[in-house]
Amino acid sequence: MNIHAKRIKDLQYMLKQNGLDALVMGRTLEIGFLTGFHLDGCAMVVSRSGAWVFMPKMLLEHFRSKVDFVTAVAPAGAMEAAALARVKELKLKRAAFEPEAETYVRGTAWRKAGLLEKDGLTGALRAVKEGEEIEVLRKSCRIAAKAFGIVKPRIKTGCTELSIYRELEDTMQAMGAKGPSFNLIVGFGPNSAMPHHETSERKLKNNEAVLLDYGCVYGNYCSDMTRSYFHGKPTEEYKKVHSAVAASQKAGLAKVRAGVKARDVDAACRNYISDAGYGQYFIHGTGHGIGLEIHEFPRLNTTFEAVLRAGMAVTVEPGIYLHGKFGVRIEDSVLVTKTGCEILTKTA
Amino acid sequence: MNIHAKRIKDLQYMLKQNGLDALVMGRTLEIGFLTGFHLDGCAMVVSRSGAWVFMPKMLLEHFRSKVDFVTAVAPAGAMEAAALARVKELKLKRAAFEPEAETYVRGTAWRKAGLLEKDGLTGALRAVKEGEEIEVLRKSCRIAAKAFGIVKPRIKTGCTELSIYRELEDTMQAMGAKGPSFNLIVGFGPNSAMPHHETSERKLKNNEAVLLDYGCVYGNYCSDMTRSYFHGKPTEEYKKVHSAVAASQKAGLAKVRAGVKARDVDAACRNYISDAGYGQYFIHGTGHGIGLEIHEFPRLNTTFEAVLRAGMAVTVEPGIYLHGKFGVRIEDSVLVTKTGCEILTKTA
Repeated sequence: MNIHAKRIKDLQYMLKQNGLDALVMGRTLEIGFLTGFHLDGCAMVVSRSGAWVFMPKMLLEHFRSKVDFVTAVAPAGAMEAAALARVKELKLKRAAFEPEAETYVRGTAWRKAGLLEKDGLTGALRAVKEGEEIEVLRKSCRIAAKAFGIVKPRIKTGCTELSIYRELEDTMQAMGAKGPSFNLIVGFGPNSAMPHHETSERKLKNNEAVLLDYGCVYGNYCSDMTRSYFHGKPTEEYKKVHSAVAASQKAGLAKVRAGVKARDVDAACRNYISDAGYGQYFIHGTGHGIGLEIHEFPRLNTTFEAVLRAGMAVTVEPGIYLHGKFGVRIEDSVLVTKTGCEILTKTA
Repeated sequence: MNIHAKRIKDLQYMLKQNGLDALVMGRTLEIGFLTGFHLDGCAMVVSRSGAWVFMPKMLLEHFRSKVDFVTAVAPAGAMEAAALARVKELKLKRAAFEPEAETYVRGTAWRKAGLLEKDGLTGALRAVKEGEEIEVLRKSCRIAAKAFGIVKPRIKTGCTELSIYRELEDTMQAMGAKGPSFNLIVGFGPNSAMPHHETSERKLKNNEAVLLDYGCVYGNYCSDMTRSYFHGKPTEEYKKVHSAVAASQKAGLAKVRAGVKARDVDAACRNYISDAGYGQYFIHGTGHGIGLEIHEFPRLNTTFEAVLRAGMAVTVEPGIYLHGKFGVRIEDSVLVTKTGCEILTKTA
């Protein structure tokens, strides 16, 4: 069975398990996940026994040429209204929508039409990767990892952060990536101390920290990794911080396994950095799920409640940021397995 | 005065005009427009006399290094809750949020906290471009227009749509663009007949239609243009369709002027194509605003109510699509002026 047809079947099973008659969706991400057709401006209804996508006339032929396991409908009016009409027509009494996937305007219209709120159905399907999507994600990560080996030797005194941004992007695209998976971060010197630094025209000087946080989209799947190193002769402080982060990440990776709580991975990383005396400089969570989105379920931080499952793909990325001086973050994308994890962004 | 400080002042004036005490925002786009700081995970409150941005600790130093005209606050909890607490603390009774800018979860929280719904405040500010942003948008469009002259000679029999996608992207990036402004469309042969075709590995054959719908992001501003031509010796039908679209676009451009209704521009394009006998094949609206987003206020179609104003930037893009054969769309980005429009994506 086609992977998308299978996902719809899985969703239909979840509807039954949750006592729902249908799920109504308006966001491209969920509709794309269920159909393989990632275009804006559609709405979708999945009942226990059927699936319909409502779309503007101009997309209809295109959709039909690609998807044959759901019914495509091009109504005259708004797609949301058409979806609601279908729910009414089929008397799907317990129809729901996912609050976290909706805009305020659309979600409000659906709530007012009597749809129920139920989060986490498609999110749970998306979190556990299976079949061909694992291979696609592996390739996305492999492209990113390879790019590090190619681009690092080109990072020389005098080059700008933006020029390295472009080198990373071009290198990954030459290997088949569609583009970067987010606003890549290239930080030199003190810029490396800002976790969300906006890559700039700043030039690299001798003896400075370098931080590259990047990844690509390949076949709609996002990779994410960070490498930090010192350009020149590292100071004692840099060496100390770098080894603390490296050991912290190692401790986190060692913790990842199906059945482990997401926040226990965070704790493993965080405890190590706290013990090294840098606790107050680790100012973000340890990681997040990756997939069709660069940030998705689950989060790995101090508060998020989730248990890792085999097939989940997450990042492990502790960091220490000394404002005005430098920052170090080490991040890999990994696939959770029954016995541990497969590091997808391994570099030499 | 700094352009961002001015925008906040303009918004404060609008609050007064609309009898509101404050606007509360949670989306990066609006906060970025008002502060110049485009990072996710913040919330903002603008009252008639003050402005506050709430952000996680890890962004604080970065924000402060760039923005000195609003008060940045990094609370422990969620940013939305912190924004609501500020509204309460300052007794801002008539505080509103913009439904169209919000997610369902955030908007619902704000509605439940008693905030009013008021759309179109920041949208109206964003629609009319002024000062340096016009120059940035001009440059974004100029980069796109220049890329056509550079890439077109490289489009040869046997090359794939995706290879041309990459050529366009690389060429625009070499001129300073950050990246493409949307999923660029390169369509060869029958693929050109799908308005939202997903660029593929399909190779160009002799004597086929070519359609390039593309643009870039430069300094956060999006350009958008489409060129259609025949690779080889055009058929009589292609020639007829192409000249109908070209004349339709010309008629639309001639209509654009401050004070004209957006839908009159659509009518000018649509009437021409209908008169030529292709009315049923023009299956989308005539255009849309461009700026920080690739699609923003206003829309140029049969139903959208808006009057063009000097400083608005919109696209004019009629098309005719003959399914299974070919499609032709011709699109330019233009700046509305008092007496007509400035075509920003002019090519030779």
